[in-house]
Amino acid sequence: VKLAEQVKNGDRRALARAITLVESTRADDRDEADQLLEALLPSTGKATRVGISGTPGVGKSTFIEALGTMLCSRGERVAVLAVDPSSQKSGGSLLGDKTRMEKLANEPKAYVRPQPSSGALGGVAPSTREALLVCEAAGFSTVIVETVGVGQSEAAVADMVDTFVLLVSPAGGDELQGAKRGILELVDVIVVNKADGDLLVEAKKTRDDYDVSSKLFLRDAAWQVPVVLASAKEGSGVDDVWKKIQLHGRDEGRRVAQAERALWRTLESEVVRSLRANPDVQKAVDEVRAGKNPLRVARELAARFELQR
Amino acid sequence: VKLAEQVKNGDRRALARAITLVESTRADDRDEADQLLEALLPSTGKATRVGISGTPGVGKSTFIEALGTMLCSRGERVAVLAVDPSSQKSGGSLLGDKTRMEKLANEPKAYVRPQPSSGALGGVAPSTREALLVCEAAGFSTVIVETVGVGQSEAAVADMVDTFVLLVSPAGGDELQGAKRGILELVDVIVVNKADGDLLVEAKKTRDDYDVSSKLFLRDAAWQVPVVLASAKEGSGVDDVWKKIQLHGRDEGRRVAQAERALWRTLESEVVRSLRANPDVQKAVDEVRAGKNPLRVARELAARFELQR
Repeated sequence: VKLAEQVKNGDRRALARAITLVESTRADDRDEADQLLEALLPSTGKATRVGISGTPGVGKSTFIEALGTMLCSRGERVAVLAVDPSSQKSGGSLLGDKTRMEKLANEPKAYVRPQPSSGALGGVAPSTREALLVCEAAGFSTVIVETVGVGQSEAAVADMVDTFVLLVSPAGGDELQGAKRGILELVDVIVVNKADGDLLVEAKKTRDDYDVSSKLFLRDAAWQVPVVLASAKEGSGVDDVWKKIQLHGRDEGRRVAQAERALWRTLESEVVRSLRANPDVQKAVDEVRAGKNPLRVARELAARFELQR
Repeated sequence: VKLAEQVKNGDRRALARAITLVESTRADDRDEADQLLEALLPSTGKATRVGISGTPGVGKSTFIEALGTMLCSRGERVAVLAVDPSSQKSGGSLLGDKTRMEKLANEPKAYVRPQPSSGALGGVAPSTREALLVCEAAGFSTVIVETVGVGQSEAAVADMVDTFVLLVSPAGGDELQGAKRGILELVDVIVVNKADGDLLVEAKKTRDDYDVSSKLFLRDAAWQVPVVLASAKEGSGVDDVWKKIQLHGRDEGRRVAQAERALWRTLESEVVRSLRANPDVQKAVDEVRAGKNPLRVARELAARFELQR
C-alpha cells in the first residue's frame, strides 16, 4: 500500500497517520491497519527496543530527552512512544506529553509520540506494540517505550522490548518495599537518577541497596542486573546506561516468546468480548442469577465452543 | 441420585465421597459431579459462609478451632474447608491439615476438610465453591473457607463467602504497607489475633492503626469494617468476632453477583483451555513464532469464534 511506502521512505506525516491508523479502535480502520502492518512487517525487527519506567517525579522525561539527544548526536534515529495513563479517555495526542520532551521532539532525527492507554488502570494498549513496529519500519534505530509505573503497564512494556530500564530516585531503599518488588523481576537495568549535588551520597547508598537486591532477585544466570548512577539534568551516566543497554542486547528467543504472548493476550481478550456479546451466554448469565450452578453452566457453554472454518 | 440423598441425611462418608467427586479433575467424574450438584442445589444456600485469611503464623488454625468449637457448643454444625497452597500437587487430603485442627476435627458436629489448590501460586480451585455447596446441602449451618494470604487466593475466597475475615498479628501497622493494601478492599471484618499477655499493648495499637485505615479504605457506606481484638489461645474475643459476622449477615445480591462472576471465571478458563488444544490455534502460534503479526492472527482467529447449537 501507498502509506506503507511513505512510512518506509521516512515521511513524517505518513508515520503519524500510520500510527493513528493502528491505534484506531474503529472496526472499519482495522482492515486497513492490518494491511499496512503486513506491508511493513518485512522492514521491522531492526531497532533496539528499550522500555523505560519509573514512578512520577523520578525524572523519566528528562532522562529520555538526555538519552535521545545523545543518540541523535551520534547519528542514530530515535522514536519515543510515551504511555500516559492519565490520557485514558483522550486516546489521542496530548500537548502535555509533546511539550514535556520539547528538545527531543524538535530533533530532526527523533520522533516523540504519546500513546493512548487502555483500561481502568491506564494500561498499555495492545496497539503500542504495533506502533513500535511502525517506527521500526520507518527506520528508527532505537525505539523507546516509556511508561509510568502504574498497574500492569510495566509488565506490558517489559513484554515488548529487548531491555527494560527502571529509573529510581535516590530516596534510599524505601522503594524496594511492597509494590516495587514485583517489578524487579521484569527489570534488566536499574538507573538511580538525580545522582548529583546534595543527593549524590544518598544516590550511592541507594545504588548499593539495589545492588544487593538485584543479586537476590537474580532470575537469569547470564545477566546480573546492573545498577547505574545517572544525572539526566547534568547528563552524567547517560552514556553508561546506553552501554548497559547495548551489552544486554537483543535476544531473538525473547522476541519470539513476546510475540507468542501477544497472540494469546489478544486472542483471549477478543474471545471474551465475543462471549459477552453472545445471546446464549447472556441467557446463561440470567439462569445463573436465578440459581443454576455457575460452574456447570460455564462448562456446558465452553463445550459448545468452536472455531469456524 | 443416591449419593445426594445420603449427603442430605448427614452421612459423613457420603459427604467425603461427594466432595472428592466435585474436586475430581477427571473428565469421566464430571457428569456424575454435575448431577450430584443439581440434586443438592435446592438444599443449598442456608449456611453462613465465612472466609478467613491471614499470613502464615498469624494463628488461623487456632482461631478457627476456637470459633468452630464455640459454635458447636451452641448446637451449630460447622464445616471448614482449608485451602493449603503447599498441597498443590497432592490434590488430596493432607494429614498435616487434619492434625492442625485436631480438636475441631474430632467434634461430632464439625467437619474439617483440606482443599486441593490449583495453579502456580497455590490458588483456590474452582471446586472449592462446589465443596461449599455440598457442605450446605449436608446441613452445616456455618461453612468456613480458610486461605493463606498468598497470590490471588484471598480474592477467590472473598468472592464465595458472605463475610471475609482477615486475621492480623499485633506486629504494628507494618502489615498495612505494600502487598496488604489490596486485601483491605476485600475485607469485612479485621481481627487482631494474639491480643494477650505481653502483646496486648501492641495489639491495641495495631487495632487503632487498622481502625484508621479501614476508615480510609471505606468502600461500602453501609458497613464500617470493624477491627476486633482476640486471643484464640485464651479464647477471648472469639464471640465478638462471631457477633460481627452475624451483624454483617448475608446479602442475596452479593451471592448472585458472586455466582455470575464464578460463571465468567470458569467460562474464560475453559474456553482458553479449548483454544490451547485447538490445532488451528497451534498452527497460528507457529506462524507467529515465524514472524507473522500476532495481533492480526489473534483477531482473525477470534473472528471465527462460535458457540455450536
